[in-house]
Amino acid sequence: MRALVVHEMLSAAVDHDTGAEVVDGSQRVTYGQLHERAVRLADALRQLGVSRGTVLGVMDVNSLRNLEVHYASSMLGAVLLTLNFRLSAEDLLYTIQHGGAEWLFVWEGFAPLVAPLRAAFADRWVWMADTMDVPEPGGPTLAALVATGSGRMPQEAARVQETDPFSVFYTTGTTGRPKGVLYRHRDMVLASLGIIHHLALHPGGAVATSRDVFLPAIPFFHIHGWGTALSVPYLGAKFVLPGRADAAEQLRLIREEGVTWTNMVPTQLHMLLDHADGAGVPELPGLKVLTGGSPLPTGLARRLREKGVRYSLIYGGSDQLATSISVVPRDVDPNADAAWESLACATTPLYMVETRLADEKGRPVLHDGKSIGRLHVRSPWLPSGYHHDLERSAASFVDGWFHTGDLAVGNPDGTLYVVDREGDALKSGGEWIATGLIEALLSDHPLVVAVAVIARPDERWGSRPLAVVQARAEVSESVLHEHLMTFVRRGQLARFWVPDAFAFVDALPVTSAGKIDKAALRRAWA
Amino acid sequence: MRALVVHEMLSAAVDHDTGAEVVDGSQRVTYGQLHERAVRLADALRQLGVSRGTVLGVMDVNSLRNLEVHYASSMLGAVLLTLNFRLSAEDLLYTIQHGGAEWLFVWEGFAPLVAPLRAAFADRWVWMADTMDVPEPGGPTLAALVATGSGRMPQEAARVQETDPFSVFYTTGTTGRPKGVLYRHRDMVLASLGIIHHLALHPGGAVATSRDVFLPAIPFFHIHGWGTALSVPYLGAKFVLPGRADAAEQLRLIREEGVTWTNMVPTQLHMLLDHADGAGVPELPGLKVLTGGSPLPTGLARRLREKGVRYSLIYGGSDQLATSISVVPRDVDPNADAAWESLACATTPLYMVETRLADEKGRPVLHDGKSIGRLHVRSPWLPSGYHHDLERSAASFVDGWFHTGDLAVGNPDGTLYVVDREGDALKSGGEWIATGLIEALLSDHPLVVAVAVIARPDERWGSRPLAVVQARAEVSESVLHEHLMTFVRRGQLARFWVPDAFAFVDALPVTSAGKIDKAALRRAWA
Repeated sequence: MRALVVHEMLSAAVDHDTGAEVVDGSQRVTYGQLHERAVRLADALRQLGVSRGTVLGVMDVNSLRNLEVHYASSMLGAVLLTLNFRLSAEDLLYTIQHGGAEWLFVWEGFAPLVAPLRAAFADRWVWMADTMDVPEPGGPTLAALVATGSGRMPQEAARVQETDPFSVFYTTGTTGRPKGVLYRHRDMVLASLGIIHHLALHPGGAVATSRDVFLPAIPFFHIHGWGTALSVPYLGAKFVLPGRADAAEQLRLIREEGVTWTNMVPTQLHMLLDHADGAGVPELPGLKVLTGGSPLPTGLARRLREKGVRYSLIYGGSDQLATSISVVPRDVDPNADAAWESLACATTPLYMVETRLADEKGRPVLHDGKSIGRLHVRSPWLPSGYHHDLERSAASFVDGWFHTGDLAVGNPDGTLYVVDREGDALKSGGEWIATGLIEALLSDHPLVVAVAVIARPDERWGSRPLAVVQARAEVSESVLHEHLMTFVRRGQLARFWVPDAFAFVDALPVTSAGKIDKAALRRAWA
Repeated sequence: MRALVVHEMLSAAVDHDTGAEVVDGSQRVTYGQLHERAVRLADALRQLGVSRGTVLGVMDVNSLRNLEVHYASSMLGAVLLTLNFRLSAEDLLYTIQHGGAEWLFVWEGFAPLVAPLRAAFADRWVWMADTMDVPEPGGPTLAALVATGSGRMPQEAARVQETDPFSVFYTTGTTGRPKGVLYRHRDMVLASLGIIHHLALHPGGAVATSRDVFLPAIPFFHIHGWGTALSVPYLGAKFVLPGRADAAEQLRLIREEGVTWTNMVPTQLHMLLDHADGAGVPELPGLKVLTGGSPLPTGLARRLREKGVRYSLIYGGSDQLATSISVVPRDVDPNADAAWESLACATTPLYMVETRLADEKGRPVLHDGKSIGRLHVRSPWLPSGYHHDLERSAASFVDGWFHTGDLAVGNPDGTLYVVDREGDALKSGGEWIATGLIEALLSDHPLVVAVAVIARPDERWGSRPLAVVQARAEVSESVLHEHLMTFVRRGQLARFWVPDAFAFVDALPVTSAGKIDKAALRRAWA
């Protein structure tokens, strides 16, 4: 019996071989070849002592090598610790230690970040290199391990259970140490496939099919590239691994490899579109993108539409996996204007996911299309708590529900509009102001590159919003104020939500997850 | 945590309410209303003593009532025994007794079939009626039970586990007593959703999306209508229940309710197309059909195409659930001629399904596009054996593999061409002749309505094929012989596969599953 185990995704791709390629730079392999390489790697690691439960730390870009380690780890029943190379050095070392890494697989480009650990890992350090050349004496390269292993599937592979741990990774909040989450094989399989199935079943957005060509621009350390490390092999579809591609290289891959599906956060998308504009590429027809960040900036949505790029918006996170994805409502034509609008904001929970809204005392908040509540989530793939962190687990995982720390508006049709982080929103005169919504509307102004709205203490109201703006060219406060007032007059924005003040910066600070670092802004401006 | 449990499919449809209707005759309910009715029914049954493990026998057409019993049974952790009303009276009573039915839910139209059991079931007999009127004294109607139950979800619902049994049903082979198979909740959920996901992910055939309007013409006793009783609520899509609709009524429903997706065996499809022709309906554009029967008769495939009906071919069975579905190969345009041809024959295993071909000694048969082998299957939803039938289990379930009793040709790309039942194929001069393939080609002749090829003993060759033909108008043996010779000349058929003789009949006998009864033909002709 084939079970909900990660390496079965790759076995399925081999059995149902479509001839599709996995592309990484000049390397092109079939899924059959990828499978053979993963088996050889697993065998080599087994001979070196890796066994069920061994924790393998991996620090690499989205590469063929990284996929090989994913599947070899699964075949051995080992636990993959995907390391976020964008963390501060201190946090990175913390996650390696807290996650219990017994081996480190390090791409040369990231070696400086973990140099202090080189000696401690000794011969349990593998260079993520495609050649046999070792950057320094003492550690094998991945290519060398693949070359030494036999082509025999490890016996352990058949003994891996759905409920065995598959991976650990760390959330990248703006406060405190990163929090770890451990997921079982079935959690990761159900959630990764859930995203793809949801997209396939709902026309109009970033529809995924077995014929699409996938480029995962979300790093694998971020929930395995939002599940693509599992779901694309499951589809047996062409898989274009971008390595450390910048926007120019992404654009080249999209055009030359025939990419039709990608995933990116809004910042990445802006850079891609800027580059396309600069390169005189007026349209990217046939491209579909799954993006996250709630709500989707109105200006970005418009730019995507102008370029002919279909999009869907996903809501989720490292500690809940996929929760909801935007869809076109059943009574709206997928090609109508209203379809694009729905796809930019209103998300529908993935099937098997339950959501509820609560006020500060835990009482239900009505799904009336306007009341803001704290979002709680329940799903088949929810972890029971944070990894080795009872205290913070107790605060967020309550009676089987995950308290997401996000604020959302529920619509009567069951869709959700996630408007802000609880820590980012402000209470002004006792009422919530969702900064995310204001940002989405401000970003619609043609001169605004990026914007963050933060709370500033206010004697009369408790706090009031301040908009910190990165502009394309000089723009006055009154122009932006008037821009928002048009939405107030249309009834789309409450008058008291309009920021009292605007500040202008050359660039907004970002976190290791690529999101705007509001904590840093609050420290500087509030 | 929401689990892989059947009634969670309906809960999901309620949470993500799209406003889609479930239609049964003049009744139209939302999924919210269906859920409430199922809860009320479950509560009423609970009060009458139905509890975890109680076996509920159901004999009804595809109705709203039948769905209510499906979901109420799931909520109570009871076991649904879906009864095949097309079985002989003797076999039907056998399955009721062998399946351990403790209650019977009987639609009035089928009452005569089970009349002898009326007294034995006493007050555990429920009339499947939408009114409060009882056809005879002593048993409540389903409507009355729904009216008496409270709207409180039974506490048992939250305790139902993925691995609890959900349903039992009986295969309808042509020899021996029907064989029972018991499926757990997760088996039925994974297999039912697997069909829908496979169809959604592969363009060109009977693609399923949340926007389709579904009419299940396969009876619910046949694997819950090939899973539609679960998968359509999961999609939250419009669900048109045909009751005992004949072809005329099906055509009316398709046109008036906007049906875009249905499932039918070839016999049903022929009747639908005949009726459309008779009613002057030249096309059924936008209709997609999932059909079973291997291989799809060439003539039927052509008729579907002429009417603009997209199709996919599914291979599976009561004792293996869904195994494979036809797809358009990745290098073929979904709109090209070759796409329609692929969709009529070459099936790809559902993801998570493994298949292999073996000869009579269990040795592997090459997937070379021509060698015929015995098809063995492994999947996450395979039962461990037949229900309370150790002897027949041991013959078919071996080391985790199900020996399907079907013969197939494997192609190098992993697709399967299921050509015949082991019992139907013949060995002639030591070589297999697959009768299904000959039938598919003969049915392409415009004068052939239906055809069955059977083995006739032959002194020299062991056996030789005889074609039993139901013709539209008079046709000579030599015309049909010449028709097959054209395929021989094209290299599509071996010369020695051409039947030595043809026999003509007014109508071919069919089994309770709607398939041609070859055992009866062999008794008559061989």
